[in-house]
Amino acid sequence: MDLATVAGIVLCSILILASILMGGSPIIFVNIPSMLIVVGGTIGATLIRNPLAEVIGTAKIVAKAFTIKLIEPAPLIARIVGFSRKARKEGMLALENVDCGYDFLQKAISLAVDGLEQEEIKSILSNDLQGMVSRHKRGRKILEGMGAAAPAFGMIGTLIGLVQMLASMDDPSTIGPSMAVALLTTLYGALIANIICLPLADKLKVRSREEVMSMSICLEGILCLSQGDNPNSIDQKLKAFLSPTARAQKVEEKRLAAEPEEQAA
Amino acid sequence: MDLATVAGIVLCSILILASILMGGSPIIFVNIPSMLIVVGGTIGATLIRNPLAEVIGTAKIVAKAFTIKLIEPAPLIARIVGFSRKARKEGMLALENVDCGYDFLQKAISLAVDGLEQEEIKSILSNDLQGMVSRHKRGRKILEGMGAAAPAFGMIGTLIGLVQMLASMDDPSTIGPSMAVALLTTLYGALIANIICLPLADKLKVRSREEVMSMSICLEGILCLSQGDNPNSIDQKLKAFLSPTARAQKVEEKRLAAEPEEQAA
Amino acid sequence: MDLATVAGIVLCSILILASILMGGSPIIFVNIPSMLIVVGGTIGATLIRNPLAEVIGTAKIVAKAFTIKLIEPAPLIARIVGFSRKARKEGMLALENVDCGYDFLQKAISLAVDGLEQEEIKSILSNDLQGMVSRHKRGRKILEGMGAAAPAFGMIGTLIGLVQMLASMDDPSTIGPSMAVALLTTLYGALIANIICLPLADKLKVRSREEVMSMSICLEGILCLSQGDNPNSIDQKLKAFLSPTARAQKVEEKRLAAEPEEQAA
Amino acid sequence: MDLATVAGIVLCSILILASILMGGSPIIFVNIPSMLIVVGGTIGATLIRNPLAEVIGTAKIVAKAFTIKLIEPAPLIARIVGFSRKARKEGMLALENVDCGYDFLQKAISLAVDGLEQEEIKSILSNDLQGMVSRHKRGRKILEGMGAAAPAFGMIGTLIGLVQMLASMDDPSTIGPSMAVALLTTLYGALIANIICLPLADKLKVRSREEVMSMSICLEGILCLSQGDNPNSIDQKLKAFLSPTARAQKVEEKRLAAEPEEQAA
Amino acid sequence: MDLATVAGIVLCSILILASILMGGSPIIFVNIPSMLIVVGGTIGATLIRNPLAEVIGTAKIVAKAFTIKLIEPAPLIARIVGFSRKARKEGMLALENVDCGYDFLQKAISLAVDGLEQEEIKSILSNDLQGMVSRHKRGRKILEGMGAAAPAFGMIGTLIGLVQMLASMDDPSTIGPSMAVALLTTLYGALIANIICLPLADKLKVRSREEVMSMSICLEGILCLSQGDNPNSIDQKLKAFLSPTARAQKVEEKRLAAEPEEQAA
Repeated sequence: MDLATVAGIVLCSILILASILMGGSPIIFVNIPSMLIVVGGTIGATLIRNPLAEVIGTAKIVAKAFTIKLIEPAPLIARIVGFSRKARKEGMLALENVDCGYDFLQKAISLAVDGLEQEEIKSILSNDLQGMVSRHKRGRKILEGMGAAAPAFGMIGTLIGLVQMLASMDDPSTIGPSMAVALLTTLYGALIANIICLPLADKLKVRSREEVMSMSICLEGILCLSQGDNPNSIDQKLKAFLSPTARAQKVEEKRLAAEPEEQAA
Repeated sequence: MDLATVAGIVLCSILILASILMGGSPIIFVNIPSMLIVVGGTIGATLIRNPLAEVIGTAKIVAKAFTIKLIEPAPLIARIVGFSRKARKEGMLALENVDCGYDFLQKAISLAVDGLEQEEIKSILSNDLQGMVSRHKRGRKILEGMGAAAPAFGMIGTLIGLVQMLASMDDPSTIGPSMAVALLTTLYGALIANIICLPLADKLKVRSREEVMSMSICLEGILCLSQGDNPNSIDQKLKAFLSPTARAQKVEEKRLAAEPEEQAA
Repeated sequence: MDLATVAGIVLCSILILASILMGGSPIIFVNIPSMLIVVGGTIGATLIRNPLAEVIGTAKIVAKAFTIKLIEPAPLIARIVGFSRKARKEGMLALENVDCGYDFLQKAISLAVDGLEQEEIKSILSNDLQGMVSRHKRGRKILEGMGAAAPAFGMIGTLIGLVQMLASMDDPSTIGPSMAVALLTTLYGALIANIICLPLADKLKVRSREEVMSMSICLEGILCLSQGDNPNSIDQKLKAFLSPTARAQKVEEKRLAAEPEEQAA
Repeated sequence: MDLATVAGIVLCSILILASILMGGSPIIFVNIPSMLIVVGGTIGATLIRNPLAEVIGTAKIVAKAFTIKLIEPAPLIARIVGFSRKARKEGMLALENVDCGYDFLQKAISLAVDGLEQEEIKSILSNDLQGMVSRHKRGRKILEGMGAAAPAFGMIGTLIGLVQMLASMDDPSTIGPSMAVALLTTLYGALIANIICLPLADKLKVRSREEVMSMSICLEGILCLSQGDNPNSIDQKLKAFLSPTARAQKVEEKRLAAEPEEQAA
Repeated sequence: MDLATVAGIVLCSILILASILMGGSPIIFVNIPSMLIVVGGTIGATLIRNPLAEVIGTAKIVAKAFTIKLIEPAPLIARIVGFSRKARKEGMLALENVDCGYDFLQKAISLAVDGLEQEEIKSILSNDLQGMVSRHKRGRKILEGMGAAAPAFGMIGTLIGLVQMLASMDDPSTIGPSMAVALLTTLYGALIANIICLPLADKLKVRSREEVMSMSICLEGILCLSQGDNPNSIDQKLKAFLSPTARAQKVEEKRLAAEPEEQAA
């Protein structure tokens, strides 16, 4: 996922830079006051719309969503099944120092190792899952709000530039360059909205959907594991989260991914 | 919350003022008739859309929402738990002259002290909560309506200016300045909608969500308190309203906040 | 409600007239063919969209909604409670010639006096209430449709004017005035939509909400009255329809409003 | 209904023709290539969006919806009550050769005469009703899609014209007429969308609502008739479909309409 | 379905090509950098919005949806009824080497032949059906996202061109051609959105609806077949999926289509 985002941003940037460079000096596209009014105005409107804590939180969520690598569902299932085999053979405490590489799974296992009730484990983990979903949802709302504010401030900047240009139209030779500068804010607003805010808001939605699946697999798997279910039946149950295509893939992957666990066990 | 709103409005205003001042005399951006048509037209359309009482009510709600400091959920829980300890030791009447610094909690406590039935307390407080939610919702609708009316009247003003300019195009040197004035109404409309109406409508929604949480905590807490629940179990129950992050914070805060109550008890 | 609508329309009209007059002769803003195309086109599109009977019905609903004074909930409750006292003392027939000043209440009372079954009264009155709601809803849809059609026909008129101007651009001195005329239809469309159709559609919604409350109070009150409930318990029940603020006001108003009824009784 | 549609289209057409004729020669508004690109593009996009069979079906539905006269609910009820009287006196078979002038009612009666079970009659007729509703709904979607495609192709045509004009701006005297032609496609797109597609889509919705009522009356009425209900109780039951206003009208109409049936009986 | 899509795209393309050719040299409409910025920008934004796997998947879904011929419901029912006759006479194993020409039906039959439980067959096939629906839905979302991104990047390209043109307005004779090139990106964006992305998104929806029907017929039919239902009762049950019109057609078609199966049996 991360890769597509980076590739998309790089592709868009290269294309826009290229089309700017082919038209002559790129210096005419740089105007600090115009940038300030669009970027600053968008940030200002975002601050009015949302509590400060949520705005900062969103920045973190976005950063996290695009840097932390999401664990794939198929190997995740294999790993949980491996843990359940280990727990069956050596007891729950054998999972105490296991390293999962996935925070949520780690927490789920430590809850199970601590011997909490099924109901308690479920309630704590569901709460975390809900929290993640609602954090992502608010982050998406904030990004969408920024995607609406940026073109609006772009238009406001262009209007300010046009009024200034029209009010002092003494020298016709300055009309062109003044209008070019006035249009820059509209361009900045369109770029911010269409390359950054709106696409990231959409991707956060996809990311949220994927993370819900991973978390649900962990939650369901650890509940089964902690009540001592048979590893094969856990495997069956967790399969239901996979799409038909992924299920076919899984068969192979599971063997590859499960083996190290088996050996470890 | 209040701070972010103020910061956002100040940031937007400074940026727009700066970009106006850098372009020359700010006097060309001041046109009283243009302001009258946008501000007056927006107010006029708002009056047609809504009953007068609701329009005035919204102004009050907005003012209140951005001046009264909202009580944080974590210290609020600590305070209610403190009250429940006090009530257990010294009886309900000990809460009679307690000062909560939060109107809704104060009312809830006085209802409990007066010895009303659980059902009655719940019905009265839920009604207040519902009333707050629906008042905020109407306020948001009115602000959103204003955010739609302002650009519309901006466009109407610009059309009027354009028609006047085009109808008497004798002296070409006046075209620029006339058109600058005509565009001002569009600018005013965009500023009113994007810096004031639409962001405030969004923030009212956030504010409403936060106030629902505070009120729900008070309602749930006082119901438990009035039926003599154990302070620790009240603490447990009210925790469920907090997000995981806030819950972690709470542990520390609770001690700090709860102590004065404890001592008072 | 009526007042705010009138005030809003007057305020908007004055501001627009003022801004037109300040710019010179208002004669340039009057163009009968432009008006015909916008007003006529909007009416035409409304006729295509809706059955003739509903279009005429909407005109009546709008006229009625803004002329008939709506009875306030608090005095209405007081009046119904007064009637219930009278009915208790002197029997149902004493209400036969009572004058309520509110058609729906009058009908409700005459049904109760005629001795209809509770179920029948409820069914007849609910049906009337539903009919009012659906009539208002259709009226709103028609007004919203007009609010979308007016700017569209404004744009069509402007396009026709522009094509005519551009096709015969022999004399440059006529370009300005021709374009001014072309823009008039856009202006008319914006005015019709933003000052008349869209705000009235919104107000019809508010009006509908208020009338539902008045009718529900009458319906509930007369049902209680006809089954001989205690006046105080009727008062309690009907209170539930009021918002907390209105409930506080009511206490005073009730005494003032109820007294004449009491004396009459 | 039919009349309002025709009146609306005629009104719009006359106004637009008049405003064209007043501005000079109407020949400048006729441009076959522009028409082809808007009309053809709209048809093309409609074919891509929808299966061919549905596009042709919609044309038929629209044609049918505006030519076949819808039977009014009040006389329809009177007729069904008349049939039930006839069936009671002379038996179901007496309805065998009755002529209803309404296909759906005719089918319903023939099912009842054939002696089908209540459940079967209900299932067959409900299925027809559902089919009508979903056909109308798809027709509406297609018309709305055309209403969105027409302005888009209008804009595409104008862009093509503008690019051609701008690329060969040698003779300034041709700029005006070229731009006039370029704008024609935008005008055509706006006319097709706002006078034909969008209003017809809305009217199809109204038509659907009315036909659902007529069909429901027939369905309910024939079910009662076929199980031998009392004509008066059938009349009572079917009344529930009418609005209060229509119900008042019905009283008179019923007598007028029912009499011939009575005599025939 | 396939045909209408192809016909629509061909019709649109011819009309646009014709209108370009009539206006002079088509070379002015070809500008590689403009194409790169619109097509590349749209692809870039799509990559940011969606995981790479889904973007590639959508391309496959669209390709598949428009090349694989969908089986018509009526002959499909006939075929399933034919299979059920065969299974009754010769036993389930007789269906082992049957060739259906429809993957989903083939899989359903092989599951039935393998003797799986009703519940298992239902669960496996429903899962496939759900997977198809959600794949189509995501495909539609991606196409709609592209339909929104293309005009946005068209506008961005035009803004870049305008800024470049305005900043160096030395030679007035270059203004026209520069602006023509600037407008090209807007034109490309409008073409991509209105001829390709948005209509295909709509058609994918229709396709999804049709495929749900075919799959549901197979699922229901094979479940009945595998529990040994009477072929005539299967025919009755599957009829319920057809619309009234299709049902009438079916009667004839069934005989024609069913006969080969009968003979084979």
